[in-house]
Amino acid sequence: MQLTFLGTSAGRPTKDRNVTSIALSLPEPMNSFWLFDAGEGTQHRLMGSKLKLNKLDNIFVTHLHGDHVYGLPGLLSSRSYFDGAGPLKLFGPSGIRAFIEGVFRLSGTHLAYDLEIIEITSGQILDDGKFKVEAAELDHRMPCFGFRIIEYPQPGQLNMERLAELGLAPGPLYGKLKQGEDVTLASGEIIRAADVVSPPTAGRVITVLGDTYPCGNSIALAKDANLLVHEGTFGPGMEAKAAAYGHSTVLQAAETAASAGVKQLVLTHFSSRFDKETIGSLLDAAREVFPHTIAADDYMEVDIPKSV
Amino acid sequence: MQLTFLGTSAGRPTKDRNVTSIALSLPEPMNSFWLFDAGEGTQHRLMGSKLKLNKLDNIFVTHLHGDHVYGLPGLLSSRSYFDGAGPLKLFGPSGIRAFIEGVFRLSGTHLAYDLEIIEITSGQILDDGKFKVEAAELDHRMPCFGFRIIEYPQPGQLNMERLAELGLAPGPLYGKLKQGEDVTLASGEIIRAADVVSPPTAGRVITVLGDTYPCGNSIALAKDANLLVHEGTFGPGMEAKAAAYGHSTVLQAAETAASAGVKQLVLTHFSSRFDKETIGSLLDAAREVFPHTIAADDYMEVDIPKSV
Repeated sequence: MQLTFLGTSAGRPTKDRNVTSIALSLPEPMNSFWLFDAGEGTQHRLMGSKLKLNKLDNIFVTHLHGDHVYGLPGLLSSRSYFDGAGPLKLFGPSGIRAFIEGVFRLSGTHLAYDLEIIEITSGQILDDGKFKVEAAELDHRMPCFGFRIIEYPQPGQLNMERLAELGLAPGPLYGKLKQGEDVTLASGEIIRAADVVSPPTAGRVITVLGDTYPCGNSIALAKDANLLVHEGTFGPGMEAKAAAYGHSTVLQAAETAASAGVKQLVLTHFSSRFDKETIGSLLDAAREVFPHTIAADDYMEVDIPKSV
Repeated sequence: MQLTFLGTSAGRPTKDRNVTSIALSLPEPMNSFWLFDAGEGTQHRLMGSKLKLNKLDNIFVTHLHGDHVYGLPGLLSSRSYFDGAGPLKLFGPSGIRAFIEGVFRLSGTHLAYDLEIIEITSGQILDDGKFKVEAAELDHRMPCFGFRIIEYPQPGQLNMERLAELGLAPGPLYGKLKQGEDVTLASGEIIRAADVVSPPTAGRVITVLGDTYPCGNSIALAKDANLLVHEGTFGPGMEAKAAAYGHSTVLQAAETAASAGVKQLVLTHFSSRFDKETIGSLLDAAREVFPHTIAADDYMEVDIPKSV
């Protein structure tokens, strides 16, 4: 499971950074990915990555500011060109339906697949049996959501060596053991699941926040997360600007990460006024507050470590 | 005066070609440019060119299909970041206002400059004293315009050497001569304008057409033009597809150029199915019909030759 940062600039693109979009590649064997936001040019960035639009299952939109949604109409349209593009779900705040349907009506756009648009409120918005997604409102200039993606626990793995030693060949009994049932062989021997199956792995939690001033819901959504993606629009000393525009400084992002007890913080959504060197020093400052911090660049891939 | 092709792909971007946008750089000393269409990513392409958004005066939209307009909201928004961005006029078919205003309302976008949106019908849509622009409807699946840009004739140039020989120092009389008036010196000597001013230069005509099946208005708009930009979505043998989708093959584009008697044809808007090599052979085929043909690539600059 991996995040790919497709755009890491706030407000407008720069030569090095596109506006916001983040892809979450789901673990094998799912072979699909989700998107969080899609600023203009997201479909172009995808062409430069290994991600193909027909493998996209869900899009989650944090809020309707242009740098987070202007790439949606083109991306949705272009997805029609991809063989095997199945149904797609688009989750976003109230207004996302009017945006997409209004643009498509005026531009005469018809998709070759089913698009379901879901206008969300706070709470659980998805449960597909492998992941649950919860949404909560943040503190921005317009309604804006953050998302907590909760992986289901992974069942334990069969210890194939031990099963071979016990003389049990692959078959239906393997499934029972994997589900935690003890089995009795024809010989009367009992094989205990706990002896041949490793304990289940806790699911991972990934938190992706939209634009926000520091707030309680950011901490709640990120509580004990394996990874938190937080905007760092501004630098230290720009707290007044952050408050005025509903954004965070990189220090405020680091404080949220520390309060929530996350394992890893990824900063993104940097003001277009900052060059690469300045972002390097913003990162140094953030690490003094929360050491496990990295700064995203476009095309950066970040693995979500397995929970232990 | 120069065209810069910012996107030359039809329908969706490819790795090498973005969707449609064409910039017209006006002659010195105007130091400004116009845009024709703005598919998604046009602002990104502009960042890779020498054209700056604060020098953009007018945008002309041929039609509302997504690959021609999805870059408008982001481009208009980003222009607010540029120092000295003055008023901007946006000309387009009925619906362009609802598109821009609807998107801006839902995304909470406010511009830092005046945007005037003009919904056009056929006929003259602009006369700024240096250029006139005429629009006419083409034959596409939705209302779609072509544009004829007509440069005013350039006044003749003073022959400075000859004036020096005649002993006439720079001053108000120069202006009179330049405007074609003969002047009488204190000595009684008459200086004829025709003797010291070169003849005026004819203005140039540039024709930029939107997507279209071959039609009479294409030929009328392009009549004797110095340069015609025509779509070449399809290749020879795909005439049925061209008719079904309201497009042209490169041969049909070349036939229009020949019928109109243009000096130069530039083909663009190639189907995303064609690679560079295939487009080379499409160009060869078009040149058999109309030799003065070139195929546009992204970032290609084409000078508009002065009329003689």
